[in-house]
Amino acid sequence: MQVNSFREIATRYKAIFFDAYGVLKNSRGIIPGVHELLDFLDEQSITYYVITNDASRGPERLAMSYHQQGVHQITGDKIISSGMLAREFLVNKVTKGTIAYLGTEISAHYVESVGLETVSIRDLNLADADSISALVLLDDEGFNWETDINKAVNLLRQRNIPVVVANTDLTYPVSKDEVAIAIGGLANMLEQIVGKRFMRFGKPDAQIFHFALEHVQKDLAVNRDSILMVGDTLTTDILGGNKFGIDTCLTLTGNTLSHRTKYQIESLGIKPTYICKSVGT
Amino acid sequence: MQVNSFREIATRYKAIFFDAYGVLKNSRGIIPGVHELLDFLDEQSITYYVITNDASRGPERLAMSYHQQGVHQITGDKIISSGMLAREFLVNKVTKGTIAYLGTEISAHYVESVGLETVSIRDLNLADADSISALVLLDDEGFNWETDINKAVNLLRQRNIPVVVANTDLTYPVSKDEVAIAIGGLANMLEQIVGKRFMRFGKPDAQIFHFALEHVQKDLAVNRDSILMVGDTLTTDILGGNKFGIDTCLTLTGNTLSHRTKYQIESLGIKPTYICKSVGT
Amino acid sequence: MQVNSFREIATRYKAIFFDAYGVLKNSRGIIPGVHELLDFLDEQSITYYVITNDASRGPERLAMSYHQQGVHQITGDKIISSGMLAREFLVNKVTKGTIAYLGTEISAHYVESVGLETVSIRDLNLADADSISALVLLDDEGFNWETDINKAVNLLRQRNIPVVVANTDLTYPVSKDEVAIAIGGLANMLEQIVGKRFMRFGKPDAQIFHFALEHVQKDLAVNRDSILMVGDTLTTDILGGNKFGIDTCLTLTGNTLSHRTKYQIESLGIKPTYICKSVGT
Amino acid sequence: MQVNSFREIATRYKAIFFDAYGVLKNSRGIIPGVHELLDFLDEQSITYYVITNDASRGPERLAMSYHQQGVHQITGDKIISSGMLAREFLVNKVTKGTIAYLGTEISAHYVESVGLETVSIRDLNLADADSISALVLLDDEGFNWETDINKAVNLLRQRNIPVVVANTDLTYPVSKDEVAIAIGGLANMLEQIVGKRFMRFGKPDAQIFHFALEHVQKDLAVNRDSILMVGDTLTTDILGGNKFGIDTCLTLTGNTLSHRTKYQIESLGIKPTYICKSVGT
Repeated sequence: MQVNSFREIATRYKAIFFDAYGVLKNSRGIIPGVHELLDFLDEQSITYYVITNDASRGPERLAMSYHQQGVHQITGDKIISSGMLAREFLVNKVTKGTIAYLGTEISAHYVESVGLETVSIRDLNLADADSISALVLLDDEGFNWETDINKAVNLLRQRNIPVVVANTDLTYPVSKDEVAIAIGGLANMLEQIVGKRFMRFGKPDAQIFHFALEHVQKDLAVNRDSILMVGDTLTTDILGGNKFGIDTCLTLTGNTLSHRTKYQIESLGIKPTYICKSVGT
Repeated sequence: MQVNSFREIATRYKAIFFDAYGVLKNSRGIIPGVHELLDFLDEQSITYYVITNDASRGPERLAMSYHQQGVHQITGDKIISSGMLAREFLVNKVTKGTIAYLGTEISAHYVESVGLETVSIRDLNLADADSISALVLLDDEGFNWETDINKAVNLLRQRNIPVVVANTDLTYPVSKDEVAIAIGGLANMLEQIVGKRFMRFGKPDAQIFHFALEHVQKDLAVNRDSILMVGDTLTTDILGGNKFGIDTCLTLTGNTLSHRTKYQIESLGIKPTYICKSVGT
Repeated sequence: MQVNSFREIATRYKAIFFDAYGVLKNSRGIIPGVHELLDFLDEQSITYYVITNDASRGPERLAMSYHQQGVHQITGDKIISSGMLAREFLVNKVTKGTIAYLGTEISAHYVESVGLETVSIRDLNLADADSISALVLLDDEGFNWETDINKAVNLLRQRNIPVVVANTDLTYPVSKDEVAIAIGGLANMLEQIVGKRFMRFGKPDAQIFHFALEHVQKDLAVNRDSILMVGDTLTTDILGGNKFGIDTCLTLTGNTLSHRTKYQIESLGIKPTYICKSVGT
Repeated sequence: MQVNSFREIATRYKAIFFDAYGVLKNSRGIIPGVHELLDFLDEQSITYYVITNDASRGPERLAMSYHQQGVHQITGDKIISSGMLAREFLVNKVTKGTIAYLGTEISAHYVESVGLETVSIRDLNLADADSISALVLLDDEGFNWETDINKAVNLLRQRNIPVVVANTDLTYPVSKDEVAIAIGGLANMLEQIVGKRFMRFGKPDAQIFHFALEHVQKDLAVNRDSILMVGDTLTTDILGGNKFGIDTCLTLTGNTLSHRTKYQIESLGIKPTYICKSVGT
C-alpha cells in the first residue's frame, strides 16, 4: 500500500473536497500544517471545499471554529454540510406545519433561518402532535436522551410524517481515545424501533457530492476527473467519493489507524486512489 | 382466522406457559378474569408458568407485583425470566473480575445475589476498565442514557469482554397509547456501533423455553405436545413457541391489535395454533 | 387517501419522470392509455423521461421494446437507466484490466460499447483472476446461478476489486401473479457472504435523479419544483423522488396493490404527493 | 493468545462436542491424528459427539463418510445434526399435507423416514401449491438454483406456510482455497425477498446444544461444566458454546486462519476458552 505526499497529489487536481474532522482538525485542534497547505493551494489556484456530515450549526458558524484557531482561509461559503441538504429538503417539501427536532437550539436556528417553524422534541406536548409535519434529527446534544427519544418514538407512532436524518455518522471522536454516539447512531435505533424509512443526508450518499459539485461549478469549469475527495473514513468519504466518480485520498489522522489500514481496506473492499499520513505534511 | 375460548383450549394441555405483559396484565393492571382463570387451572390440575423477557428484578420481586394486585397464585417459583438465564450465564462463565451493568440497583441486586461483584456503568471510571470482565444490559432505567451509553461504547472499545443482553424486547407499553424503548432496543444500537456480537437471552430464543421445560419436568412428567405457550407478540412468544415445538395461542390484549392480526400473521408468516381475545374470558 | 386524475396532475409540471415497469407497461404489455397520454404531454409541451432500474441492455434497445408495441414517442435519448450510471462509473474509475460480469451478452455489449473489456463470469477461469479489475452485476439471466454465483464468491475472496450493482431491484414481475429474483436480490446475498461493501446504482439513490436532471436541463430550464416522479413502488420511486426534492405520484398498476396502499404508506412512512389508479386514465 | 495442546485440555472434561468440518475433517480428508485422538478419548472414558450444521443426509449416512476414511469410532448415534432438529420440528408441528423441499433426494429421504410426505420444489407445480404445508431448506444441491429458488419465492407469496432452515451455515469449503454457498446463505436471500420470518436450526442457536445435552445425559450424568465444545468457527461453534454455558476450544484447521485469529476474536468479541492448532496434535 503506497503512501504519498499530499502536496504532490494535490497539484494534480483543480478542486479538492476535504472532510473536516480527522482531516483538517481533530480532538487536539487544527492538524499541524493545514494552515500552510491552504496557503499553498491558494497560490496554486487549486480551489477547495469542506464536505462534512454535520448539522449542529450553519456553515458560517462552522467556519468560525476554524477562524478561532487561526485558519482564516475557510469561510462559510467553502463549507458544504449535510445540514444544508436537510434544510433544503425541508424548505422544498415541508411547506406547512411545525418541524419537530432533536438537537440543540443552535442547530434549529439554522433550519429556522429560512422561515421554517420548529419545536424541540423536549418542549413538544404529544397532545399537540397533530401540528407536527416532519421530524428532523440534527444533533446528539441539546435534549434528554431518555425522555426525548422515547417521545420521538411515540410521535412517530401517532403521526405518519417524514423523518430527516441530517448527519449519518454513527460516532464522533471526543478525545484521543474516546468517541460519542452521533445523531446518525440514534437515528438507526429509532428507525428500527418504529419500522419506518427515514431520509438520510450526508456522505456516502451521492446527494452531498452533487451539491458540492454544483457549488464548485458556479465559479469554475471543472469535471469530476479534476476533483479529489480527501477523508479519514473508508465507509463515508472514500466509498462516497469512489461511487461519485472522483478520485479519493485516505488520510491517517482520524478514524483509520495506520496499522489497521491495509486490513480494513481489504475486509471492506473500499480502496482509495491514494493514502497519505496527513494533509499537513 | 378462528377465535377460540381460552378455557376450552387450556383443558387440552397439562402445562401452560404465559407471557406476562399483554397476557396476564397490561398498563391498566391485571387483565379481567385472570384470577378466576388461574383458580380454574388449579382445579383442573393444569400447571402454569410465566415466561417473561424481563431482567428488571428477580422472580420473587416480579411475583410481588401480582400479589399486590390480588393475584396470589403466581409465586416466585412459577416465574421464568430472561434475567434468570443471564444470571446463570454470568455465574458459569464469568468467574473473576467485576461485572458492569446498565440498569437499576434492583436489577443488579438479583445478579449479585449469587455472589457476583457488579458496578453500575454510572459509577464506573473508565480508567478502571481493566477490572471489568463482562457487561450486562439489565434495564432501561437507573442510568443517564447519554453519559452512560456513551461510557459503555468506550468500555467496549477498550476491553474485549462478553456482553449479555438480559431482555431482548425492543419496547414495552407504558400506557394505553405509548411505549418506551426497552434495554433490548438500546442493546441493538450499542451492538451496531461497537461492531461486536452480543449474547441475547429471552424469547424467541430456544434457551428460555428449555429452561422452563426443565423446571416443569422436575414436578411433572410432561412432553412438548402437552404444553401451550400463550403470548401477545408474534415475533417472540409465538415464533419461539412454534420453533420449540409446542402449541401456541395468540391473545389480543397486548401488542397484537385485533384488526391487524390477520395482516400481521400473513406478512410475518408466523402462525399461532389458536387465537383468543383474552385469557380471562 | 385522495386519488387523482393523472392528466390533471401532469399539467402542473414542466417535466415528468416515469418509472417503466408497473407504470408504462406490465406483464400484459403497454398499460392502456399510455400512447394517448404521451401525445397529450407532447401537445402540452411537457417533457418526459423514463427513469428505470435496468441494466439488461442499453437505452436504444430498451426503447425498441416500446416501439415494437406501438409506442414510438419513447426514444433512446428519453431513457435514463441504472445501467447507464454503472457504465459511467466503470469508464471513469476502472481504467485498466478486464471487467467480469454476471448477466447476458446483451447487457455486457452495452458496457463494452465504450471500449471496456469484459468477460462473463461463466467464461472466467479463476486461475486468471489477477487480470480482473472489477465485477459488475448486470442481469439475473445469462449465466448458471449455481456455478457462476459461487465462482463470483471465490473471485471476491481472491481479489479486492470494486463491485458494481447496476440494478438494485429485489424482484421483477414475470406474470400477473409471479415474480422473479432480480440481480439486486442476488447482489444482496453475495455482499452478505463476502462481507464487502458494493456500489449500487439506481432508485432510490439520488445519483440517478441527478443524472436525469442534468439530461433535462440540457434542453430546458427547469427547477425541481417543476418535475414530477411517477412510480408504482414506494421504496424506490417515491422514496427516491421525495428525498431528491421533487413531487411524486404513486400509480396502482404495478407493485402497490390498491387495497394495500393505505397500509403500506403508513407502515413504511413513505408518502407520495399524489395517488393515481393509472397514468393511462 | 495462548495456544494449548488438545489432549491436555480434553482430559479436563467428561464429554466433548466436536464440530465436523474444519475440526475432524476438511477438503483433504480426515485431519491427521484424529483416529489416534478418538482412541485416546475412548481409553480415558471421555465420551464425544459430533455436532454439525448439516441436513444433507441422516446421521447414519454422515457416519459412513468417516468409516470410508478409516475412522470407525464415529457411529450414527454419535452424530447430532441440525437436520435432526428440523425433522423433529416437522414431525411435531406439520401433521398434514406435503412438505416441499430444496435439496437432494438423499436429504429428503431422511425427512421421509419418519412418515412425512415430501416433494422437491423441482417437481412441484405451483398450481398444486394448496397441498403444501411447509417448506424445508435442506441442501444447496439437487435442484436448479434459478428456476427452483424463483419457484420457492412464488410458493411463499401464495401460501403462508412455515419455512424451516435446516442448516444455518452461509458457506462451506470445497477445496483448500474455495468455498460454496450453503443452503443457509440461500435461505437469507429468500427470507429477505419474501419478507417473512423463517425458523432456523443449527449452531449458534441453543436448541442443537440442548438436543446434544439430552443425548449425552441418557448415558452419563454430566453437567455443563464437564463439557467442551470444539470448533473452527467463532460465530457458530464458539459463540453458541459460550452462550450455552459450556467451555469452548477454537481449532485452526478450518475457517479461522492462524494469522487472523487474534484480530477476529477482537473484532467480533467472541472469545474461546482455549485455542489449539489442531485436535490431532
